[in-house]
Amino acid sequence: MAACGEAVRGFLFEYDTPRIVLIRSRKVGLINRAVQLGILAYVIGWVFLWEKGYQETDSVVSSVTTKVKGVTMTNTSTLGTRIWDVADYVIPPQEKNAVFIMTNMIVTPNQHQGHCAELPDDNTVCKDNSSCVPGYVSIHSNGIQTGACIPYNRSINTCEVFAWCPVEDDYPIPKPAFLQEAENFTILVKNNIWYSKFNFTKRNILPTFSSTYLKNCIYDAQTDPFCPIFRLGNIVKAAGQNFQEMAVEGGVMGLQINWDCNLDRAASHCVPKYSFRRLDNKDSANTISPGYNFRFAKYYKDSSGIETRTLTKTYGIRIDIIVFGKAGKFDVIPTMINIGSGLALFGAATVLCDIIVLYCMKKRYFYREKKYKYVEDYEVGTSETYGTNS
Amino acid sequence: MAACGEAVRGFLFEYDTPRIVLIRSRKVGLINRAVQLGILAYVIGWVFLWEKGYQETDSVVSSVTTKVKGVTMTNTSTLGTRIWDVADYVIPPQEKNAVFIMTNMIVTPNQHQGHCAELPDDNTVCKDNSSCVPGYVSIHSNGIQTGACIPYNRSINTCEVFAWCPVEDDYPIPKPAFLQEAENFTILVKNNIWYSKFNFTKRNILPTFSSTYLKNCIYDAQTDPFCPIFRLGNIVKAAGQNFQEMAVEGGVMGLQINWDCNLDRAASHCVPKYSFRRLDNKDSANTISPGYNFRFAKYYKDSSGIETRTLTKTYGIRIDIIVFGKAGKFDVIPTMINIGSGLALFGAATVLCDIIVLYCMKKRYFYREKKYKYVEDYEVGTSETYGTNS
Amino acid sequence: MAACGEAVRGFLFEYDTPRIVLIRSRKVGLINRAVQLGILAYVIGWVFLWEKGYQETDSVVSSVTTKVKGVTMTNTSTLGTRIWDVADYVIPPQEKNAVFIMTNMIVTPNQHQGHCAELPDDNTVCKDNSSCVPGYVSIHSNGIQTGACIPYNRSINTCEVFAWCPVEDDYPIPKPAFLQEAENFTILVKNNIWYSKFNFTKRNILPTFSSTYLKNCIYDAQTDPFCPIFRLGNIVKAAGQNFQEMAVEGGVMGLQINWDCNLDRAASHCVPKYSFRRLDNKDSANTISPGYNFRFAKYYKDSSGIETRTLTKTYGIRIDIIVFGKAGKFDVIPTMINIGSGLALFGAATVLCDIIVLYCMKKRYFYREKKYKYVEDYEVGTSETYGTNS
Repeated sequence: MAACGEAVRGFLFEYDTPRIVLIRSRKVGLINRAVQLGILAYVIGWVFLWEKGYQETDSVVSSVTTKVKGVTMTNTSTLGTRIWDVADYVIPPQEKNAVFIMTNMIVTPNQHQGHCAELPDDNTVCKDNSSCVPGYVSIHSNGIQTGACIPYNRSINTCEVFAWCPVEDDYPIPKPAFLQEAENFTILVKNNIWYSKFNFTKRNILPTFSSTYLKNCIYDAQTDPFCPIFRLGNIVKAAGQNFQEMAVEGGVMGLQINWDCNLDRAASHCVPKYSFRRLDNKDSANTISPGYNFRFAKYYKDSSGIETRTLTKTYGIRIDIIVFGKAGKFDVIPTMINIGSGLALFGAATVLCDIIVLYCMKKRYFYREKKYKYVEDYEVGTSETYGTNS
Repeated sequence: MAACGEAVRGFLFEYDTPRIVLIRSRKVGLINRAVQLGILAYVIGWVFLWEKGYQETDSVVSSVTTKVKGVTMTNTSTLGTRIWDVADYVIPPQEKNAVFIMTNMIVTPNQHQGHCAELPDDNTVCKDNSSCVPGYVSIHSNGIQTGACIPYNRSINTCEVFAWCPVEDDYPIPKPAFLQEAENFTILVKNNIWYSKFNFTKRNILPTFSSTYLKNCIYDAQTDPFCPIFRLGNIVKAAGQNFQEMAVEGGVMGLQINWDCNLDRAASHCVPKYSFRRLDNKDSANTISPGYNFRFAKYYKDSSGIETRTLTKTYGIRIDIIVFGKAGKFDVIPTMINIGSGLALFGAATVLCDIIVLYCMKKRYFYREKKYKYVEDYEVGTSETYGTNS
Repeated sequence: MAACGEAVRGFLFEYDTPRIVLIRSRKVGLINRAVQLGILAYVIGWVFLWEKGYQETDSVVSSVTTKVKGVTMTNTSTLGTRIWDVADYVIPPQEKNAVFIMTNMIVTPNQHQGHCAELPDDNTVCKDNSSCVPGYVSIHSNGIQTGACIPYNRSINTCEVFAWCPVEDDYPIPKPAFLQEAENFTILVKNNIWYSKFNFTKRNILPTFSSTYLKNCIYDAQTDPFCPIFRLGNIVKAAGQNFQEMAVEGGVMGLQINWDCNLDRAASHCVPKYSFRRLDNKDSANTISPGYNFRFAKYYKDSSGIETRTLTKTYGIRIDIIVFGKAGKFDVIPTMINIGSGLALFGAATVLCDIIVLYCMKKRYFYREKKYKYVEDYEVGTSETYGTNS
């Protein structure tokens, strides 16, 4: 019991501190302070000030809606004079975090289910029925072969297929793009972000804007960097692309909204940064299915109840709205981790200077004698070293 | 060789430990132990227990499907008595991580491509042909101006346009909302999550539920917090909004599913937490395009083959399903990092107490003599201090 | 002033290093070196080499487009002989990060708005008008009840409803699936990724591929692991599922593209890893709404201008393209944090060996006397210990 109390008293009322040898030497002292200063500059300057090592970070959670505006007119032999507005060229009408605007198209109107000649290519051109296999279908087919070889046009025969007839001929892509004027269309992007860890929300339509400004502004990186309305041609140009070139085969653009915020500052400093990037492979030569296109159909019923459809292979620009960012706010844990690591690094200064002092300098043996106390192992029974207190 | 062996023997068979001066002083001892206890409490209590600093974290990878149910009837002069079911008001029929339910609409049926009077506003109202520029089109136009000024109605003349006629008149938004009953529609949300780092998967339809329960339950934060079927009106109410108000101009709701899981516990403890938030700006006065709406068209062909369309400007509530969360599981690395930083922090206790002992206390000079050993630099040739071993 | 200069000189030109007692003991020395070696092995082997603790990490930002190819033919009494191509079975025609392919369907053609008998179930079967409440509608209803009880077929009477008539009968799901051949359809997936922190972009169509290879390859985990074209049946099989079974009620598949890249190596080492997983609950017995289905309608106008629709309850496989991954690149901060923590851990070796030497070994009292210097607190006036320098 007494021994227990003695141990507790010893534990609570004792303070142990390492014994230090202070070497008064200009050279070593300056080296030591220089190394310590370097470490301090690194910890404070780089870790804390530049990289904000005292902050906890969180990723953004975002919601986006878009609205396109614009009208254009075309005049072709197939379709005649025709107006195109939002309901015609935005497909589908609403999407999450993306918007597709048709810029070019190949229309195959009035398709019926029936038998007709397949599109000519290496596999479908034929001389007689023996070249055509009934029931054959490949990945690139428009329909199921019947086995017959029939005229596709006056000069070529191809295998007959059961398909939506007439089959689509998608070889000559219209050049220039059908809806050239799409360059002038505008897209309003409304974006709401939330940093869940810090319960911080903000919208990209800043509270300082008036309705009049918002109705008429167009985004410009220099003059209107926070206007949420983007002209389609400007988006493409800012990514270093040529709109009319891209409009022919379509493509995918990224409209990136970056919300890197320092939440130790006022909320008004947390603003979006817009950037633009082309996301698909522009190089037609080294890819399959260049650009961006897909097929959709409008279905009709004629007076006899037979279903017909208009197949449209539509090329256009899909704009992916990519919202990303990190918020940082002061938190104890990362601060302590970095302080702790910094303190440990100061130990490296001591290690380095020790090496210089004890192994490299002329007076190293002298310093070693001051620093180290050698204790030999002793054999039981020898009383010489026992009890020596120094 | 012998010197090499000597060095190796010295390296392997020596153990160096710092020499310590143990100061028996109640005051300093207690201060020292108090600071060390504080640091220990911080490391164990805050870093390890509260913030779970011993865990590696991973973000959630998620997949969501939705299914809406509900039927309502409307009776208007334009459309007559009409039933609306899922295929009519969910647009598009399926979407990834979102679902749109129409609540209000402005229908412009039987539009043909042709010439008609533009909607009256500051730019389109005219007295005679000189006010209208042929070929002019602005962002807010419905069509391309022809140059003529024609009657819009008995009192106003506007510029003629080539457009889908008659042009849409979207000024009087129906109040109350057209599909008021949408408040009673229900949405089943099926969510599957995966933490890739820990290869852990779970679904929001918990295995403890029976089919009967799932067929009839409605989510309630208190009584049925894990039922995956949500009543639309309850979602809006839980976010602090008024459904009928929101239904008029539409809006965007966030249905947030939070999967913060501690994977050191049983898998049954990993359950979703649902919360609801309005994502768009409610304030109509300080924003453009308040609420949420978009236009889509249904295309028809009349008996003569002329294409007509019914344009619908549809307002509604889009529900973004936002799944987020972090899983934590014990891992050696973050544990070691935090232990290491904690150990380094103990060094701070020594630094602090050293300052108190060596600079603040009455007996500081006494303690300094016990701690420090001053070694002067010496000049070669002086044999006084050389060889003194202490 | 002089004191100030003296303090500065003291600070700059002094170097303090802890005094060390070197115990020459084989046992303790070996224990010490073994523990230090273990810590070193852990820090270098595990933290730096295995877990790449010297790297900064970043999450992937991704964009995906898909294109489906394939044609199939069906022959049923309801629809006759019919061809199905991409525009018919991919709904909607384009989606972001997902693609839905219809495999089974229940078609209810020629629906008009009107009065007809509700589908029989526990709530709708009736004997006479008293069982039917006018205006009643439940979540599972097809329409609003009128209050009348009319024949559904020759044997059952159900409540009359105002709905799209005839109501859909979705009880017998076609087995086997309607579009069995969907197993052979192919999906081209084009994926572009971006690590914003390192400004690194890459596409999943690797630059080493020729157009010919890309036109004809099919993804195979062993022979063609980087071909971006996937056969639908193979996707399902690779996830351990049976395609024909899954095609009946539909389901959700995940096509996971993992981009874990070490950006300290050449960019060519950064390649995608594809994996497949079923995301919905396969077990029909323990879930509601098994599989994956939704309803959509095609709208027509007959010659008298009355609107009709064809309602399709479509079952199919939705493939969610899930892109995830982390890139790592050498960075100073995490390296320093881990080095700092490692250095602090070396201190643990000293703590452990101290415990062994000072408390466990036979010669512990001897070692304690070498290590510790006991200093008693003194009372002012006693000059005994003051000034003793050792």
